[in-house]
Amino acid sequence: MELQHLSGKLTPAVRAAARRLVRRLDELGRISDEADRLTRTFLSPAMARANEQVGAWMQEAGLAVREDAVGNLIGRSAVEGPTFMVGSHLDTVRDAGRFDGALGVLLGIAVAEVFGADLAQWPFALEVVGFSEEEGVRFSSAYLGSKGYVGRLSKADLARSDANGISVAQALAQRDPVVRRRARRLLGYLEVHIEQGPVLEAEGRPLGVVTSIAGQTRGRATYGGRAGHAGTTPMRLRRDALAGAAEWIGAVERFAARRAPLVATVGTIAVSPGAANVIAGEAVLGLDVRHPLDRARQAALRSLLGQGQTIARRRGLSFRWEKTQDDGAVACDRRLRRELARAAAPWSPPELASGAGHDAVVISQLTRVAMLFVRCRAGLSHHPSEYAAPRDIAAALGASCQFISSLARHVRT
Amino acid sequence: MELQHLSGKLTPAVRAAARRLVRRLDELGRISDEADRLTRTFLSPAMARANEQVGAWMQEAGLAVREDAVGNLIGRSAVEGPTFMVGSHLDTVRDAGRFDGALGVLLGIAVAEVFGADLAQWPFALEVVGFSEEEGVRFSSAYLGSKGYVGRLSKADLARSDANGISVAQALAQRDPVVRRRARRLLGYLEVHIEQGPVLEAEGRPLGVVTSIAGQTRGRATYGGRAGHAGTTPMRLRRDALAGAAEWIGAVERFAARRAPLVATVGTIAVSPGAANVIAGEAVLGLDVRHPLDRARQAALRSLLGQGQTIARRRGLSFRWEKTQDDGAVACDRRLRRELARAAAPWSPPELASGAGHDAVVISQLTRVAMLFVRCRAGLSHHPSEYAAPRDIAAALGASCQFISSLARHVRT
Repeated sequence: MELQHLSGKLTPAVRAAARRLVRRLDELGRISDEADRLTRTFLSPAMARANEQVGAWMQEAGLAVREDAVGNLIGRSAVEGPTFMVGSHLDTVRDAGRFDGALGVLLGIAVAEVFGADLAQWPFALEVVGFSEEEGVRFSSAYLGSKGYVGRLSKADLARSDANGISVAQALAQRDPVVRRRARRLLGYLEVHIEQGPVLEAEGRPLGVVTSIAGQTRGRATYGGRAGHAGTTPMRLRRDALAGAAEWIGAVERFAARRAPLVATVGTIAVSPGAANVIAGEAVLGLDVRHPLDRARQAALRSLLGQGQTIARRRGLSFRWEKTQDDGAVACDRRLRRELARAAAPWSPPELASGAGHDAVVISQLTRVAMLFVRCRAGLSHHPSEYAAPRDIAAALGASCQFISSLARHVRT
Repeated sequence: MELQHLSGKLTPAVRAAARRLVRRLDELGRISDEADRLTRTFLSPAMARANEQVGAWMQEAGLAVREDAVGNLIGRSAVEGPTFMVGSHLDTVRDAGRFDGALGVLLGIAVAEVFGADLAQWPFALEVVGFSEEEGVRFSSAYLGSKGYVGRLSKADLARSDANGISVAQALAQRDPVVRRRARRLLGYLEVHIEQGPVLEAEGRPLGVVTSIAGQTRGRATYGGRAGHAGTTPMRLRRDALAGAAEWIGAVERFAARRAPLVATVGTIAVSPGAANVIAGEAVLGLDVRHPLDRARQAALRSLLGQGQTIARRRGLSFRWEKTQDDGAVACDRRLRRELARAAAPWSPPELASGAGHDAVVISQLTRVAMLFVRCRAGLSHHPSEYAAPRDIAAALGASCQFISSLARHVRT
């Protein structure tokens, strides 16, 4: 059979599929666990509804649909033999935008729609994957979906518990979380994602080819002090856990500000007892540290934890650190990158590193990965105002179709 | 009839009642809404059980028991005419000790036990009150019980909501929160309470006579920033609400540390969205400011809010302040104080101001108030290690009996 060849000028089929994709982003963005904002977390009721809806779209696109043991949604074309994966995640942060994750999954479906019946003639199967967990919201640890997919959910992962004390293992309930990875050969993985940063917008480009994904370390820091009465304990006799935590938050911010591209963030804090008239006896903070160079990230983390200890000692507090995630930087595959840059050439895509983690980090343990970034407004993400223009999404679909069809030609020859 | 006269040396009746009181403090301390720690909040299941148990003890002591429209537990001796109140509150902070509040209520019952049938012969009724809410835990506003008792629960109080969005009015359910205060004449109010500070221990005295109760202001400060991705938003482009809040927490601590006896505390903080990989878009803090002088407290508050604004402006954040409580300093009645000092003379009680707020603050709107402090270990309260020695509690009971019997003599003449 003859594979469809796409030029930079988008064919009617690509334009129609892109319009449908944009409508579906809206539709999927209304499937939420919360009434007034978009939140979908691992194995939640909204995630089940999202899988049902996206699974229906996969089926319409001619893909055979299944859900694996950790809730990943997988649509596969009717080809035996090696597999090329296109995907991203369907979970979201709290009060999320509707593009982060969803775009990469729905784009995979749109690729299947563009090629239609031709898919069955390809020398490899197209597998579109919607991972069930990437954001780390419910269990404070990311990539549970893709880790399950590659068969690397550890005992520690399964033992993690959410705010209600439910463990990952319990949440998986009747499912069998020990995924047996199929022996099929994998040719690679493409993830299309909004940039979540300001570079493409600044350079006036709709698309960017990702060179590597920054490494990141996450964990929980706990300051322990002494609870006491807020009215009767003189300031000089206090061991206020929150005051210590606050001092460290300031130190983290100042340290990272002087060391771009390092970013370090405290995004969660909980104090106990947690009453207006009681000095905090304990404060628990979530720290997230990222850098494109592993060594720089590790050095920054050591320094930040040292500062945390110093602050605690001076204040008569205890300080404990528990690492919950530690991912090295991941390089995108050189050959796939070149192929992707060629396919996206009509849009002159710059190369850029990703400050955000993506499912591609985990999937890189299994096969070579490529990532295409789509320009987003004001670099904003993890926010309801997150936005990518329909025109840019259509460009991403065109480039992705071109990329995959060139792979199909390549595998054939 | 002849009123029992008590010397500094405790009579067997007082000693027996004091032993019972200490046992009951243990027993009451096991009635909790949480499994492993003591927590009783306004109208909670544990509060209902506590009222039932304490009500039974009141009845055994010969008092007629009722619960008013806001859950205050009231036991009254069989005398028509004017009333003298002894009481404190039965709710607790989270992870509380077992003396704060409970001591003053159970001591009132012990007074009734010591005088027994003689109570019916007095020229006034003894009313022992266990207020249903003093700590401000559930609705972030204190004194809901005593405010209800004096008939000053405002519409704003009734509209407040707890963490589950339930309002005070809803929590009161079928009860009628508009309390009609009885026309009976009140002679005064005595509240016995652990000191919750280190002064009595430092001076080696079991009891102290309170001169005044420090004024206090509480409220909620909200920093508004912009949520964003923790991996892709460079430090210099952030508007991190938590980083702003942390800077202010440090400023509050430094300001108060230089201005004793001012105390200023941030004991609660909540951030949203509240995920490890999302920059905080909002941070809400609880601030508590106290000083024995109203003008000093008000000036401190103005300065702290000014600093909060300045920090917000420099960081491109918004800053909002919502006052939830504002109580001026309250002086204890001069004549009752003199009477109380005389009754407690065998224990040479020093005079001291209270840094903590007490139900007496609200009851002072209704009648003259007196307070007796009992030494507590390490000045600690609002903590499970809170402790007052049985010997000191017995002294407090002896002094209270002497105080009330001298009042009874006084009213008679």
